[in-house]
Amino acid sequence: MSTARTPSSSPTCNATSRSHAPVLDSIVDALCAEDRGILRHVRKPPCAEPLPSAATVASLVEQLRATIFPGYFGADELSPENARYHLGHILDKVRRGLRTQIKRGICFSCDPTAPKPDCADRATQVTDAFLKRLPDIQMALMDDAQAAYEGDPAAVSPDEAIFCYPGLRAITDYRIAHELHLLGVPLLPRMITEHAHGATGIDIHPGAQIDRRFFIDHGTGVVIGETCVIGRGVRLYQGVTLGAKSFPLDENGKPIKGIARHPILEDDVIVYSGATILGRITIGRGSVIGGNVWLTRGVPPNSRIAQQAPRQEVFVDGGGI
Amino acid sequence: MSTARTPSSSPTCNATSRSHAPVLDSIVDALCAEDRGILRHVRKPPCAEPLPSAATVASLVEQLRATIFPGYFGADELSPENARYHLGHILDKVRRGLRTQIKRGICFSCDPTAPKPDCADRATQVTDAFLKRLPDIQMALMDDAQAAYEGDPAAVSPDEAIFCYPGLRAITDYRIAHELHLLGVPLLPRMITEHAHGATGIDIHPGAQIDRRFFIDHGTGVVIGETCVIGRGVRLYQGVTLGAKSFPLDENGKPIKGIARHPILEDDVIVYSGATILGRITIGRGSVIGGNVWLTRGVPPNSRIAQQAPRQEVFVDGGGI
Amino acid sequence: MSTARTPSSSPTCNATSRSHAPVLDSIVDALCAEDRGILRHVRKPPCAEPLPSAATVASLVEQLRATIFPGYFGADELSPENARYHLGHILDKVRRGLRTQIKRGICFSCDPTAPKPDCADRATQVTDAFLKRLPDIQMALMDDAQAAYEGDPAAVSPDEAIFCYPGLRAITDYRIAHELHLLGVPLLPRMITEHAHGATGIDIHPGAQIDRRFFIDHGTGVVIGETCVIGRGVRLYQGVTLGAKSFPLDENGKPIKGIARHPILEDDVIVYSGATILGRITIGRGSVIGGNVWLTRGVPPNSRIAQQAPRQEVFVDGGGI
Amino acid sequence: MSTARTPSSSPTCNATSRSHAPVLDSIVDALCAEDRGILRHVRKPPCAEPLPSAATVASLVEQLRATIFPGYFGADELSPENARYHLGHILDKVRRGLRTQIKRGICFSCDPTAPKPDCADRATQVTDAFLKRLPDIQMALMDDAQAAYEGDPAAVSPDEAIFCYPGLRAITDYRIAHELHLLGVPLLPRMITEHAHGATGIDIHPGAQIDRRFFIDHGTGVVIGETCVIGRGVRLYQGVTLGAKSFPLDENGKPIKGIARHPILEDDVIVYSGATILGRITIGRGSVIGGNVWLTRGVPPNSRIAQQAPRQEVFVDGGGI
Amino acid sequence: MSTARTPSSSPTCNATSRSHAPVLDSIVDALCAEDRGILRHVRKPPCAEPLPSAATVASLVEQLRATIFPGYFGADELSPENARYHLGHILDKVRRGLRTQIKRGICFSCDPTAPKPDCADRATQVTDAFLKRLPDIQMALMDDAQAAYEGDPAAVSPDEAIFCYPGLRAITDYRIAHELHLLGVPLLPRMITEHAHGATGIDIHPGAQIDRRFFIDHGTGVVIGETCVIGRGVRLYQGVTLGAKSFPLDENGKPIKGIARHPILEDDVIVYSGATILGRITIGRGSVIGGNVWLTRGVPPNSRIAQQAPRQEVFVDGGGI
Amino acid sequence: MSTARTPSSSPTCNATSRSHAPVLDSIVDALCAEDRGILRHVRKPPCAEPLPSAATVASLVEQLRATIFPGYFGADELSPENARYHLGHILDKVRRGLRTQIKRGICFSCDPTAPKPDCADRATQVTDAFLKRLPDIQMALMDDAQAAYEGDPAAVSPDEAIFCYPGLRAITDYRIAHELHLLGVPLLPRMITEHAHGATGIDIHPGAQIDRRFFIDHGTGVVIGETCVIGRGVRLYQGVTLGAKSFPLDENGKPIKGIARHPILEDDVIVYSGATILGRITIGRGSVIGGNVWLTRGVPPNSRIAQQAPRQEVFVDGGGI
Repeated sequence: MSTARTPSSSPTCNATSRSHAPVLDSIVDALCAEDRGILRHVRKPPCAEPLPSAATVASLVEQLRATIFPGYFGADELSPENARYHLGHILDKVRRGLRTQIKRGICFSCDPTAPKPDCADRATQVTDAFLKRLPDIQMALMDDAQAAYEGDPAAVSPDEAIFCYPGLRAITDYRIAHELHLLGVPLLPRMITEHAHGATGIDIHPGAQIDRRFFIDHGTGVVIGETCVIGRGVRLYQGVTLGAKSFPLDENGKPIKGIARHPILEDDVIVYSGATILGRITIGRGSVIGGNVWLTRGVPPNSRIAQQAPRQEVFVDGGGI
Repeated sequence: MSTARTPSSSPTCNATSRSHAPVLDSIVDALCAEDRGILRHVRKPPCAEPLPSAATVASLVEQLRATIFPGYFGADELSPENARYHLGHILDKVRRGLRTQIKRGICFSCDPTAPKPDCADRATQVTDAFLKRLPDIQMALMDDAQAAYEGDPAAVSPDEAIFCYPGLRAITDYRIAHELHLLGVPLLPRMITEHAHGATGIDIHPGAQIDRRFFIDHGTGVVIGETCVIGRGVRLYQGVTLGAKSFPLDENGKPIKGIARHPILEDDVIVYSGATILGRITIGRGSVIGGNVWLTRGVPPNSRIAQQAPRQEVFVDGGGI
Repeated sequence: MSTARTPSSSPTCNATSRSHAPVLDSIVDALCAEDRGILRHVRKPPCAEPLPSAATVASLVEQLRATIFPGYFGADELSPENARYHLGHILDKVRRGLRTQIKRGICFSCDPTAPKPDCADRATQVTDAFLKRLPDIQMALMDDAQAAYEGDPAAVSPDEAIFCYPGLRAITDYRIAHELHLLGVPLLPRMITEHAHGATGIDIHPGAQIDRRFFIDHGTGVVIGETCVIGRGVRLYQGVTLGAKSFPLDENGKPIKGIARHPILEDDVIVYSGATILGRITIGRGSVIGGNVWLTRGVPPNSRIAQQAPRQEVFVDGGGI
Repeated sequence: MSTARTPSSSPTCNATSRSHAPVLDSIVDALCAEDRGILRHVRKPPCAEPLPSAATVASLVEQLRATIFPGYFGADELSPENARYHLGHILDKVRRGLRTQIKRGICFSCDPTAPKPDCADRATQVTDAFLKRLPDIQMALMDDAQAAYEGDPAAVSPDEAIFCYPGLRAITDYRIAHELHLLGVPLLPRMITEHAHGATGIDIHPGAQIDRRFFIDHGTGVVIGETCVIGRGVRLYQGVTLGAKSFPLDENGKPIKGIARHPILEDDVIVYSGATILGRITIGRGSVIGGNVWLTRGVPPNSRIAQQAPRQEVFVDGGGI
Repeated sequence: MSTARTPSSSPTCNATSRSHAPVLDSIVDALCAEDRGILRHVRKPPCAEPLPSAATVASLVEQLRATIFPGYFGADELSPENARYHLGHILDKVRRGLRTQIKRGICFSCDPTAPKPDCADRATQVTDAFLKRLPDIQMALMDDAQAAYEGDPAAVSPDEAIFCYPGLRAITDYRIAHELHLLGVPLLPRMITEHAHGATGIDIHPGAQIDRRFFIDHGTGVVIGETCVIGRGVRLYQGVTLGAKSFPLDENGKPIKGIARHPILEDDVIVYSGATILGRITIGRGSVIGGNVWLTRGVPPNSRIAQQAPRQEVFVDGGGI
Repeated sequence: MSTARTPSSSPTCNATSRSHAPVLDSIVDALCAEDRGILRHVRKPPCAEPLPSAATVASLVEQLRATIFPGYFGADELSPENARYHLGHILDKVRRGLRTQIKRGICFSCDPTAPKPDCADRATQVTDAFLKRLPDIQMALMDDAQAAYEGDPAAVSPDEAIFCYPGLRAITDYRIAHELHLLGVPLLPRMITEHAHGATGIDIHPGAQIDRRFFIDHGTGVVIGETCVIGRGVRLYQGVTLGAKSFPLDENGKPIKGIARHPILEDDVIVYSGATILGRITIGRGSVIGGNVWLTRGVPPNSRIAQQAPRQEVFVDGGGI
């Protein structure tokens, strides 16, 4: 009965081979099973855009870095004669690439009943609005580089900070992501800061508000939460957490989004490595927070905070601790 | 005795040039010196396989991620019509690639007196056994993604956690590596978790046992040791160490391998950033461990642990701490 | 005055199009504005070399790693017959590539009034001097690998440490960078250790002095400062900081460069995860420093240091900490 | 008037550098000069598509070849189990890629006053109509491969013809291009046959009509014109021209397009190397045309045509001819 | 009967989507249809090797060219000190790569009932036998280069011929392919000469026998058949065919393979562009064959052959010919 | 006798392995043998430049093509706003790349006793002189494209000729190479035309003099010799040779270089496919040369030349010719 046999819909090309090697078929079946819903994000009309591409977004950020610090990154033979051509060329490429990725981000969270062209138009507007912010981002980062040079005895010049320091790289990516965040772009700001996080170990939420002359030294393990407010001239060392202590749940037990729950660091605060500062507390201007403290209460300006002194003894045999 | 020297074995093409630039020769000689034994791992019969390739293994894991979360990673234009073709295509490629790398791993630690075909057959069996575990890995990870969404007020959707969160990436790689570890594959599980470690700063030993709904937020600096046991619904923040306090040495002063020496975290435990929990101790169900503590003793369920309050003072001049 | 405007100097190809899309022009103008000085590092005669390339330097380090540990990295099918050819081939490529990058580094900080050939000659000398150090670097790293094997119960063999352990990778890159630092090469040593930092989360300044049998386990977040002195057989865990407590400023408020300001760790010291040790203090031979301590004073040999015991209580409801 | 000149519109970043190296500016100015009109094809609204990409079209044809002859080209490890997955995967990629290139081709010659969505819809329809023709193309090419095997004593098997023979490659590309030509796609058919032309030296216009069992041996220099009609079982050798003898001009002296002006070759005709056959003439069934003839008149079936016998003499000294 | 249909064998992930876009499924079905047999060459046990890779074989030939003419191709910075390392490195890579491709070629035509290891062993033997022929190939090609220099007034030096002349490239590839042909390697020799054919328009069958000091000038369209015998010092111009006039068919109408059917050119023969010489005839030593002749009979030594003089007239109006 | 054994000079890493696999060593020895002299072109001081890179030169020509026909090749999304940036960017890259390759070409044939900087300075001058010729090259090619459109009934527009026609591609590369030839650059002009030859089958010597409105249709097999002179509006078809009939030898039997030995074609000449025109003869203005003729004598203006009519007969059985 031919209707019962559908050889052509068999995923292998002939029946005999199927019986002896059905490995692929059953796994594909299970991974695609409708009741799992994992395929719910495959693109669908009307706003049928795939997700933004992490690799493309990372490349766009690298190109932006090359326009912000011309001669340090990217095209390795910049001269006064060719500088404008190179910058214009890169910016034009970035502009088209960024527009596409922003459109994907907008579509990811758009109302699927809205007509698609709105997403494209919005992406065009947002991209150009962002690019116009680049010169201001450049100015802020030159201040950050100067602060790095002044804050690190090992730094030879501000150029070295621009070229080598992971802290400045993470701040650059944050400042780019923050502008996109302010423009309401979904998904991309987080992708950018997570890319920086992967490269530097520094995790700055794009929603954080950070003033100029910001310096993170070494930086691995630094976490700066979504609602942090950081003043001018603040310096952080590796492993510092500016996090939430806890967060209220709604009636369904889900965390309520959008509440200010991270610390405020006023101007000129220094936090040493490994300190954990949690909750919507204020660290007063000019305070110095020692390493490895667990701090859940605000401190007045010019405070000096340190962990309790450790237990110390001299022992004889080679045992553990 | 110079007369015994054959010109043709000179690594330079003529004698005159040799005298004026012997840099390469002497360095090559020294690096290859027999008494160093550094060449002992160049491949030798009968099981003459090179070491697994770190880059290839990393690529295979990326492709597995694309099959576990179709539409989030990899092929960027998945539709209901093409999804099965893409998944089958990727799985088939992964199957052949993984088989090769697993064979290399098996050969790396195999008995060189055993005949080679055993390694190839074993690799084929293990590869298919692993692939059949993929749907279960997918199910576990969907639970982990839901836990991430519910555990982070900044998360917009479980999709964002899948797409952006380094914690979920590290757990994905761990769950893949753990299955290979259970199947007795040498070397590859560790390569996979070290690749995730490099990308996320999260270091989970493939031997650890971790239940579902596991969430690591931010994650940089997290270390989870080989014999850890982690219950359902556990949440860790960045910088948490679940390590060994010390380990017994054998009569030769070498550490004895395979002893349970890492903590047990029961269901619903939360550990804040920077906490160090060492030794085969049990953190009771529902406990909350504060940041930056040094904990070497078990605690009962629902405990709340925190560092001693820091020393705090306000100072006037701008000195250090 | 429109008649004075020369169309050919317009960055767009016709006047009409310019009016409706001036986005690129104004951004390029602003980014290149002379008063910002950001273009001051575009290459200029007489020593018109671009900056070293981070990607090229990273690739050179990977190739050096393949010569130090033949068969573990790089060419994946090494045999006794081809080993010398492969090593010689790689070293020759590295020699030329490194010479170019070293020359760029030298030019970056050279006196622009000095004649250019000096930089090229100096680069050639330094490159060969460095390459002659490779066999000694190899010897030291084989000792480090043995220490890793002996110091980690989870390690199966020294080979696994060479192949997989981020700690050994970071130490390899440090030992390469340190030799270049000793030879006075500007910029490259820091680029190399920052590359390792990005890949492993371990940040070792190339100026630090570190003896053999050095082992860093897991390693994410480790920071070792410029003037550290580390003895033989030292073992560090993740998140350890060996930093400066503070640093004196000169009359202009800038930090004074080059002062010894980081700790000395004598032989056989062990430091557990997350400990912060700051200042020019000495940790006596054989001491064990517990995790998460904040230590700013030296300790005698065989000391055992630990954080104060945490506050601990059992609670009933599900509140935060 | 130089004072009216705005420095920011200068393509170099500062005025001083401009004076000493104006090379780029003047060349760019001249190449973009408005009166040349060379920029007339930069994309403009409303149908602002760039030209099709030659490299992408070439890659699409390679992928089509891999679906037509599975296991000979492309994915190098096809098995009965994975064949359907691989074919589906490739076809899906080709479908999206071809749609884009076809849309560009349509836009290239579309009425710029028509709304853009028409081009996109048309491209989608044409792409799917073309893909449905693939199985018939496959059938025809299997006949061509058989004819190659039977027509060449040096051929070991039809497989070798499929895998190695440039003639079959050129015919494959022609059969693909011809279907697109029949569907009215602009530009792409010619791009495809020119790509084959570059690779094989065989130039078949996509408009030619060619029956099955067509064999071109060696093939370099073969030219088959737009309005040729070629019967079943025809065999051509290298250097054969089937061209137009001349073409009528319109009142402006331009050639009139679309007139049948190339030869008709009936079934089983053989043409030897270097023969030139021009004009709308008919070569009767079963005829054999000898090499290097210049033929501008039709011949009846079963004709045998050859060049006049050459002048021949034996000479003594080594002079020229 | 729909109940007999298994959803898991559907190539799309859910039933609804399938109905609206069945394009891929039906095409895949048709291309894979069993009765076509096109899948007969997907690899099957016991000798389950895919076909050789055209791209890999082409790359191997490029690397061989770099070893035959060191410093002209490939590694661009050869010096007396590094030459041996580079050659050894390339030859080692070629040796492994060629072994794999030769094994595939052997398996393509092997007896499927023979055990697989035979193919691998045979490939190893043949590869090394071939490599030992390289120095002789080099010697022959240096003679060919000298002949090119002496035979072309436009040639500046033998180096230019080596570096630029397509004729010498085609002869190099032929000499490589011919050695593999003599060793009985299936498929690869033809792949190599077809690759040269595609690049140069010169088609030399690997079975032809060609003595030293062979020069092909310009070369496009040259065809040299399988059983040609070419003496020392022969020179050919573009478009020359040395082919078969006709070939006997067996009782099934198939051409009988392996019969000597191509011309013999004795020493010092010159053939001008476009001449067609067919059949097992002998062109006597020192003869000169003029362009565009059709020659199917042998000529004695020192003959001078030319086409009949053309018809020539002067006309007035601009008509065709 | 152990003292005679020098392990360090052994090309394998230990003695035992050497005995069983000496394949590489002996081949390397033979290929590098001093008496062959094949290594004579490895770079040597003082002018130690490697040969130009064929791949780089090919890429530079592609980039030049993109500047000559903006929007047709290269950057695929040109707009009026970004055109100048893209052109300037490409030209700047070409300028640096071309300078390097020209320097290599100059060094290839320079007097090795001259100081190196001369070669570098000469390369810089020549590069800029060439680039200033680009606008004129563009003008000439626009005329050629128009002639192609008017000379081919199958051409849809001049754009199609620019985008698709191999004839125009070959002429573009010739016009580039000719300018470099006029500037006295060694080696590169020939590399460029040989690259075009490989891609199109059209071989135009860079020394030929060719006026505007030149059209080659189809083109495979066309050869235009070094001293040809071609007037305005000439049209050639595939397989046309404009060559030397013979060339005088010097007292050593070597061809005398630099003598005018190729044809002169006056304005508006048409030559049909496969014609061979040899020697310093003149084809008068407006003449039409039929296909496959062998022409060694000049013809007056408005001549019409054709091959003698072929022998023609009808035969019955299926024999050869």
